[in-house]
Amino acid sequence: MSDSNSPVWRVNGHIAEPPNVDRGLQFGDGLFETMLASNGRIPLLAGHLRRLEQGCRRLHIPFPGTRTLEDDIRQRLPASGQAVIKLIVTAGDGGRGYARASEMQPLRYTAVFPAPHRAREALSIMICDTRLARQPLLAGLKHCNRLEQVLARREAMRTGVDEGLMLDTDGYVIEGISANLFLVRNERLITPSLSHSGVSGVMREHLIGCAQAWGVEVQVTSLKLDDILGAEEVFMCNSLMGVRPVGRLQNGEHGHEWGPGELTRQLGKNIEDEVFA
Amino acid sequence: MSDSNSPVWRVNGHIAEPPNVDRGLQFGDGLFETMLASNGRIPLLAGHLRRLEQGCRRLHIPFPGTRTLEDDIRQRLPASGQAVIKLIVTAGDGGRGYARASEMQPLRYTAVFPAPHRAREALSIMICDTRLARQPLLAGLKHCNRLEQVLARREAMRTGVDEGLMLDTDGYVIEGISANLFLVRNERLITPSLSHSGVSGVMREHLIGCAQAWGVEVQVTSLKLDDILGAEEVFMCNSLMGVRPVGRLQNGEHGHEWGPGELTRQLGKNIEDEVFA
Repeated sequence: MSDSNSPVWRVNGHIAEPPNVDRGLQFGDGLFETMLASNGRIPLLAGHLRRLEQGCRRLHIPFPGTRTLEDDIRQRLPASGQAVIKLIVTAGDGGRGYARASEMQPLRYTAVFPAPHRAREALSIMICDTRLARQPLLAGLKHCNRLEQVLARREAMRTGVDEGLMLDTDGYVIEGISANLFLVRNERLITPSLSHSGVSGVMREHLIGCAQAWGVEVQVTSLKLDDILGAEEVFMCNSLMGVRPVGRLQNGEHGHEWGPGELTRQLGKNIEDEVFA
Repeated sequence: MSDSNSPVWRVNGHIAEPPNVDRGLQFGDGLFETMLASNGRIPLLAGHLRRLEQGCRRLHIPFPGTRTLEDDIRQRLPASGQAVIKLIVTAGDGGRGYARASEMQPLRYTAVFPAPHRAREALSIMICDTRLARQPLLAGLKHCNRLEQVLARREAMRTGVDEGLMLDTDGYVIEGISANLFLVRNERLITPSLSHSGVSGVMREHLIGCAQAWGVEVQVTSLKLDDILGAEEVFMCNSLMGVRPVGRLQNGEHGHEWGPGELTRQLGKNIEDEVFA
């Protein structure tokens, strides 16, 4: 494996160990992007950098700049094939306490990982006991405070399902553990509102744009479990797996199944052709 | 400054840089303790290690063991004077995603910082706009997902107050930014329930024990802002600052002040004599 492919982090573009008292390590005081690299490019790069910029603004971390981040990513980009590039931007070095340095110097970490096998078959999912807290200040952001996802992923691994359905503490269905959720009803695309929790996925945004361009109505709203069970099609998506139909919900003895759906198939094919090609 | 006092982290007892893909950095997947070292000992060590063990259990991180952690801490303990020792235990190295390694190897970070000046005068506080999310799965833990505290501390710094009062998203008063909250009413000590958010402070636990030993009734309950405003005495506490009376709440044009109180004074003196001596 060439150096550009090694999973060693680079910090601010250099091969270096993370600094000692990075606020990322101490408090999860940072944001990240997990990007698919495909044949020398990042298909959804603009969306990733836009989300990161918005996240920096909301967390009051100086945005390192699109040009700087593009340079960091280019250093790690394999010329061909597929890989995953992870980018973390933290609030940088800090002392012991919650107060950031008055002159914050954000740190940029990049690492390259092997691309996961992109399966096509329908996902099996469960309802996670781990609920998402409702926190409008952090909702939508891909920040580094991810203990809820860590606990939920543990549940899914132990149960042996592909993904988990995460509800918030008020019982609204929000998303998968590392994927966003869509359902299809009466030829409309419906996806949960992320105003109080959840991660606003780059693939989710891309799909909303695609669907609207096709004249498909997209509704972003509050959803309960019954809405999911009553849907004609259910799928999940993220930047790495694209669009994956949900085939089966394990729910104790009462499973629920969804057949293959036409809109899911079309969106999935579109992503395969336009994004992952 | 001798090596044992340097703010360089030791990882698993060795002078070393943090590993590359620590889950602490990626997801805040860890727990920490901030301990006062005073004349060659950690006054509340047992309480710190007990809380850490409980935290590990709740987050499903293997507890490194009291003996191991005591050794780590002893390595860093200045023989005299006061210092702050920070201990972080993370879920260790991991890959890119939320799933932990099947054989988790927790990592132990220790660092020594100068002790803050322990002021005695009454605190000025504000009501933070940053609310605490309600998440029973994480409530009470001193975990490394601390963006809420980072944002709240920023508010307090900009406003120029010593501490911030943090309410949860339902309007219950929970704690300070890096301190727990107590109030005195009719000679009873009252402190907010931490069942849905907040950090169960080691000093808070210690004070509850002290008060009970003195025959002072302690009530742990849900509190609203009016309860705080109507209290005879209000104080905050943590392992570093001990007991500090709250003197003034800034609240736009409507400030509120509390005079010095007898129970606060007695508890403070007790902590000074027994813990910080």
